[in-house]
Amino acid sequence: MLIGTLRQNDADQPATSENVQAALGGTGFFWLDLDDEAADGTVSELLSVHFGFHPLAVEAAEKFNQRPRIDDYDNFMYLVTRGADPEHSGQAEVHCFWTDRYVVTVHRGGCPAIQEVRNRIGRHHASEAASPQIVIVYFVVNAMVETFFPFLSKFDDRIDALEDDILKQPTEAQLGELFDMKRTLMDGRKVIAPQRDMMASINDGVTDVPGMTENATRYFRDLYDHLIRLADLVDSYRDLLTSVMDTHLSTVSNRLNVVMKQLTIIATIFLPLSFLTGFFGQNFAYEVRVWLSPTWSFFVVGIGLQLAAVVVLLWLFRRRGWLGGPTV
Amino acid sequence: MLIGTLRQNDADQPATSENVQAALGGTGFFWLDLDDEAADGTVSELLSVHFGFHPLAVEAAEKFNQRPRIDDYDNFMYLVTRGADPEHSGQAEVHCFWTDRYVVTVHRGGCPAIQEVRNRIGRHHASEAASPQIVIVYFVVNAMVETFFPFLSKFDDRIDALEDDILKQPTEAQLGELFDMKRTLMDGRKVIAPQRDMMASINDGVTDVPGMTENATRYFRDLYDHLIRLADLVDSYRDLLTSVMDTHLSTVSNRLNVVMKQLTIIATIFLPLSFLTGFFGQNFAYEVRVWLSPTWSFFVVGIGLQLAAVVVLLWLFRRRGWLGGPTV
Amino acid sequence: MLIGTLRQNDADQPATSENVQAALGGTGFFWLDLDDEAADGTVSELLSVHFGFHPLAVEAAEKFNQRPRIDDYDNFMYLVTRGADPEHSGQAEVHCFWTDRYVVTVHRGGCPAIQEVRNRIGRHHASEAASPQIVIVYFVVNAMVETFFPFLSKFDDRIDALEDDILKQPTEAQLGELFDMKRTLMDGRKVIAPQRDMMASINDGVTDVPGMTENATRYFRDLYDHLIRLADLVDSYRDLLTSVMDTHLSTVSNRLNVVMKQLTIIATIFLPLSFLTGFFGQNFAYEVRVWLSPTWSFFVVGIGLQLAAVVVLLWLFRRRGWLGGPTV
Amino acid sequence: MLIGTLRQNDADQPATSENVQAALGGTGFFWLDLDDEAADGTVSELLSVHFGFHPLAVEAAEKFNQRPRIDDYDNFMYLVTRGADPEHSGQAEVHCFWTDRYVVTVHRGGCPAIQEVRNRIGRHHASEAASPQIVIVYFVVNAMVETFFPFLSKFDDRIDALEDDILKQPTEAQLGELFDMKRTLMDGRKVIAPQRDMMASINDGVTDVPGMTENATRYFRDLYDHLIRLADLVDSYRDLLTSVMDTHLSTVSNRLNVVMKQLTIIATIFLPLSFLTGFFGQNFAYEVRVWLSPTWSFFVVGIGLQLAAVVVLLWLFRRRGWLGGPTV
Amino acid sequence: MLIGTLRQNDADQPATSENVQAALGGTGFFWLDLDDEAADGTVSELLSVHFGFHPLAVEAAEKFNQRPRIDDYDNFMYLVTRGADPEHSGQAEVHCFWTDRYVVTVHRGGCPAIQEVRNRIGRHHASEAASPQIVIVYFVVNAMVETFFPFLSKFDDRIDALEDDILKQPTEAQLGELFDMKRTLMDGRKVIAPQRDMMASINDGVTDVPGMTENATRYFRDLYDHLIRLADLVDSYRDLLTSVMDTHLSTVSNRLNVVMKQLTIIATIFLPLSFLTGFFGQNFAYEVRVWLSPTWSFFVVGIGLQLAAVVVLLWLFRRRGWLGGPTV
Repeated sequence: MLIGTLRQNDADQPATSENVQAALGGTGFFWLDLDDEAADGTVSELLSVHFGFHPLAVEAAEKFNQRPRIDDYDNFMYLVTRGADPEHSGQAEVHCFWTDRYVVTVHRGGCPAIQEVRNRIGRHHASEAASPQIVIVYFVVNAMVETFFPFLSKFDDRIDALEDDILKQPTEAQLGELFDMKRTLMDGRKVIAPQRDMMASINDGVTDVPGMTENATRYFRDLYDHLIRLADLVDSYRDLLTSVMDTHLSTVSNRLNVVMKQLTIIATIFLPLSFLTGFFGQNFAYEVRVWLSPTWSFFVVGIGLQLAAVVVLLWLFRRRGWLGGPTV
Repeated sequence: MLIGTLRQNDADQPATSENVQAALGGTGFFWLDLDDEAADGTVSELLSVHFGFHPLAVEAAEKFNQRPRIDDYDNFMYLVTRGADPEHSGQAEVHCFWTDRYVVTVHRGGCPAIQEVRNRIGRHHASEAASPQIVIVYFVVNAMVETFFPFLSKFDDRIDALEDDILKQPTEAQLGELFDMKRTLMDGRKVIAPQRDMMASINDGVTDVPGMTENATRYFRDLYDHLIRLADLVDSYRDLLTSVMDTHLSTVSNRLNVVMKQLTIIATIFLPLSFLTGFFGQNFAYEVRVWLSPTWSFFVVGIGLQLAAVVVLLWLFRRRGWLGGPTV
Repeated sequence: MLIGTLRQNDADQPATSENVQAALGGTGFFWLDLDDEAADGTVSELLSVHFGFHPLAVEAAEKFNQRPRIDDYDNFMYLVTRGADPEHSGQAEVHCFWTDRYVVTVHRGGCPAIQEVRNRIGRHHASEAASPQIVIVYFVVNAMVETFFPFLSKFDDRIDALEDDILKQPTEAQLGELFDMKRTLMDGRKVIAPQRDMMASINDGVTDVPGMTENATRYFRDLYDHLIRLADLVDSYRDLLTSVMDTHLSTVSNRLNVVMKQLTIIATIFLPLSFLTGFFGQNFAYEVRVWLSPTWSFFVVGIGLQLAAVVVLLWLFRRRGWLGGPTV
Repeated sequence: MLIGTLRQNDADQPATSENVQAALGGTGFFWLDLDDEAADGTVSELLSVHFGFHPLAVEAAEKFNQRPRIDDYDNFMYLVTRGADPEHSGQAEVHCFWTDRYVVTVHRGGCPAIQEVRNRIGRHHASEAASPQIVIVYFVVNAMVETFFPFLSKFDDRIDALEDDILKQPTEAQLGELFDMKRTLMDGRKVIAPQRDMMASINDGVTDVPGMTENATRYFRDLYDHLIRLADLVDSYRDLLTSVMDTHLSTVSNRLNVVMKQLTIIATIFLPLSFLTGFFGQNFAYEVRVWLSPTWSFFVVGIGLQLAAVVVLLWLFRRRGWLGGPTV
Repeated sequence: MLIGTLRQNDADQPATSENVQAALGGTGFFWLDLDDEAADGTVSELLSVHFGFHPLAVEAAEKFNQRPRIDDYDNFMYLVTRGADPEHSGQAEVHCFWTDRYVVTVHRGGCPAIQEVRNRIGRHHASEAASPQIVIVYFVVNAMVETFFPFLSKFDDRIDALEDDILKQPTEAQLGELFDMKRTLMDGRKVIAPQRDMMASINDGVTDVPGMTENATRYFRDLYDHLIRLADLVDSYRDLLTSVMDTHLSTVSNRLNVVMKQLTIIATIFLPLSFLTGFFGQNFAYEVRVWLSPTWSFFVVGIGLQLAAVVVLLWLFRRRGWLGGPTV
């Protein structure tokens, strides 16, 4: 069974087989939006039998998780556009077919962006500025592209938070998260870069789009501008993530330094003191008899020497600036 | 209420609605500078109703924090230019509309650069060299571009100071600052690169600018030259920041080495000595009776052995160059 | 003896000398697939004597492990295509010669991709869409290109697994594996990049291919699209491998920190305590006689002081957040 | 007062105002070299009043420390060329104006390269090969470009010396020097890259140079070749400096390892031995009475156990290859 | 005295002055190969006086250690080609002059590649395919280019061996070698990249070569292909060397971890035990009299407590996975 919406003369109907064939038989412009969640071949059959699209394109429209691209067929255009989809839900991918007379969009499951397009298109009065199919394609691609901005904005905040966390307390969980973020960024780049190149090829006139007017190019230039900015952002974030990773390593090394200084201070104080107590704990007869027997020797040598050693060491540490420094 | 200045025939008037309409109704060249700080729609209304600019451009002029770009509309040009704005005050962004007859600039709040343009334009006698709108646009963009130079110069000094600080004493606060500097640089790059590309497209003739003469191209080539230099500087600083980060890590590692050498020296001296004192503190009857009872044994074995161990260890350390080295 | 298959009119025959000469003498299209595993010159002789290919091309076809490329000879095309071959078995390299009338493919040993091409070509009905030689060359190159996808997919999983392993327990074996993976990636890049450039040169029309039609370009654009994606993947994985290497270093440094903290805690607790026991183990007559003789002094000084020291140290550690942290 | 040299008909005269005006009034070719060290406006006045150069170019010639570039004015060319100037003395910057009839060069202070040009130009017999102004400009730029080679050659030696020093003994002073070298390289790059691009634009014909002939292009191609090589060198050195920095970090880490092994060896030997002496220094009545009283127990247990422990530990160390290794 | 070989009509003669002048006076094609080891000006004189080459080219041919390049003079081509020369012997540099009628090659000392060219040229029957001067130039450049392959192949093996060595035992000598290898690679790149660009300019028709035919381009395309591959290899090796350096650092850090764990284990076992022995070695009267006097207290407290501590610590270590791990 077909699931979808047929929009004609600013009105939406369910996309039943009869409705679609009536629209195809008519002469007015229409937009058919199909949900191929079932992936049971109904959509493919409709596209190949009733619309007569090229088998290669119909076959392509059956596969999701594709590289965004635009293909110029003899009598129609085929375009794949994708949005941000960090959870790999597959809900941010739309395949568009369009000719002079209609636009067909295929997606899977509840694609929130398409619903938004339908809302916005009702409010938009650009019919005089550009042909309706260009406007719809623009809105669909735009809705996809715009999903990246909030996503990257959250990403941006996360980088800052991570940097702050690392400076507070570097942990191994952060390393794992940094790697995951790099992966996510890499996924985003694989979807953004081809869309940017696609828009560049449309703007440069390398790809010829039906319904394109001087006025309509402005829409695609706008998309191109957004996509360049996105690609730049992704590259910047990749650079920043490397910086955060470097900060992690440097912070860990720095703290190691602090820990080691503490260990060295402890050892430098107590190893000499322990030596002294050991020295006066020996069983040499002469030592016990002569050196250790007077009462004053305990206070002067036993305690005084210890205190003197501590004072000298503290003075040394202070001179080197080891005291009063950071304590992790 | 409109806030702004209308400049006509080298004289400034407040930009009241009447003045603007009079200027529009006249035939002379004028420059209207608007302050849209209130963002209450007055400016937008003026631009769309009285000037009749394209809705897309008017809508764009309402949003600040935009990517610099130039858009070629049928009857006017729309240009966004930005300057250095490290505190995100939003005071370094100007939107320009211009036609053959007038220039309209829109900014928010006290934009110091615009005031400077007004001063300089009074002193400039280039009217014969280029059309007045090109001169104003040049001055506006130039004022924006020039804000980057003192900013980057301070940045440059800060990098050197940071490098010196790190070599003196590496801290974690420096890591945070390095990250912030990288961020700032990244923000700068996002504003400089598109302006450079914009000027390249004007110089190459890809973007057609009204009022452009052979003579006027020199102005834009000058801007292009400045922007290339800025972009190069930003890339160089990014490279230097990475070097500073590496210096931090290496310095920390180096100091760890010094600390560890100190710990090793202390341990290498006192662990053997403590062993000796421990050895002579044992309670073996034979040891106490025979080895430890003669007076000479205390001086020869108890003290002499200790001194001999210290001498040997110091000689070993000296041979390895561990003494007299850096002490953090 | 010749080993191979001659395909004519959708039927396969063994590629005996007679069959090949009959096909050459005929006028129908044929595809000759040769297995040059013996490398005994039979294939070369056939190519140069009967087919009359240029000596340079025949000589090239004798050497395997070549850089993929396409060469335009006066009366035929010569193309080298390669697939994923991580074990260097040499089974993923095919050399193609083609003219208007026939295609000759040369490979070594059991090349599984060629067998798959034979299966697919039987099912494919593209004869009307493109000339048969283009279809065969497309299928051969495509079969090669597609071998990279499962290979890289495994690679992808391996990277993730390695990252997880490293975060669990970093070892030196992982470093060796990371290096091997970088090598493998480098090998893949050396084979993928030239094929991508080759397809670009065909698509841009720089290389003129016989039998090329508007429709046929779609096949090569498809290959180009795949190869760009592969090259992007390889670059992304290289980037990720560097991240994994950084994770390794950071994890090791982090664990060093944990180990050192533990050592410092142990030393900070037991060095002072040992000093105390040493202090009360001295043989000063006064100390033994006065300080150490009362019963309460053992409990208060000998045990109480120790406990107090432990309590103070634990309190210090807790304040610094050293207790309850990760224990590797 | 004007300071400079006027060269006409292979003879040098001081550049007095009268001489310059006589030369300007004449018809022969001349080269005027001006030293603007005073920067008191005399030179600017001469250039704008007598030579009638465009105010923008005259203004530019007053500022030193400029980005090298070439500007094409209606009736003259303006070129800024710079050489190696690691001490920022400002003596390696020359501004050239030239037309069909004369060349004017402006520099500040004793510019050794200009003197050398004067010497070489006397010996050069290229008048038939290229127009005299091209020859002079070539010699001036060439003299500037050639100052980089000895400078970079010294730089090269310094990198090698630094690498050797670091492998001998890594210090923090080296880190500071590495950073300074990177800075110097960055300064060099900012001067070399624009000159290379300038020569490229001349060679490609993008910039139209008066007096250019087929033969003259050879001179500029030669300069271009030198500048490409310089830019490549600078990039290579930057790469090498990063390697040297990595070597520093790795060497420091390596030495830390050696130090820590030493500490571990010392601790592993003496902590168990000290435990043994401590054990036999206890005051348990049974231990003292039974275990420690026989004479043989001192030799067997007191000394023998210690020796056995040392032997076992040394055997362990040898098995791990810790003995006989590097000792910093 | 001239040293060299004159090849005419497939026969070699010594390059005496008379022979060369006779060949020049004749009309047949000849190849003159000169050895300028003496560098006494004889060769330069011959080239400028008898051959009449441009002074700039003759001067260039006197200097060795040049950047490979091709220069197009009015009546001849001048080409510098270089091969692998890791020992800087200068024996892998050839300067070629060629016109329609002859080729002159200049090298210094025993250039093995030239001898090989002479051997191969006797066996080659390409006279019908391309003009003889193109064939000779091709063979000379090819001989130079091919010297890189065995060199880089050895380099490749060395990288692998180094990686294995580092994983076995990282040393500082390896760091020095890594740096030397990077240097060598940089030297190679400086020679390979310009030759690749040179071939690209010939293939693209930017540089016009006399004697070039459709057939002859195949030779240069072959060289271009080799040089691209070489440049790719050099870049890959540079990348791998960086990986090897990272492996070194990570391995050293890893081993430091192992050493520190060992130290921590030793300290964690023996510091508490030593504390216990110290505790029971105190001279508190009550302790000695009451706690330490019963026989069972020695076995239970003196020995039992020690064993219990060891057991608890070993259990702790096992739980953390510290036992049974790698021991360097």
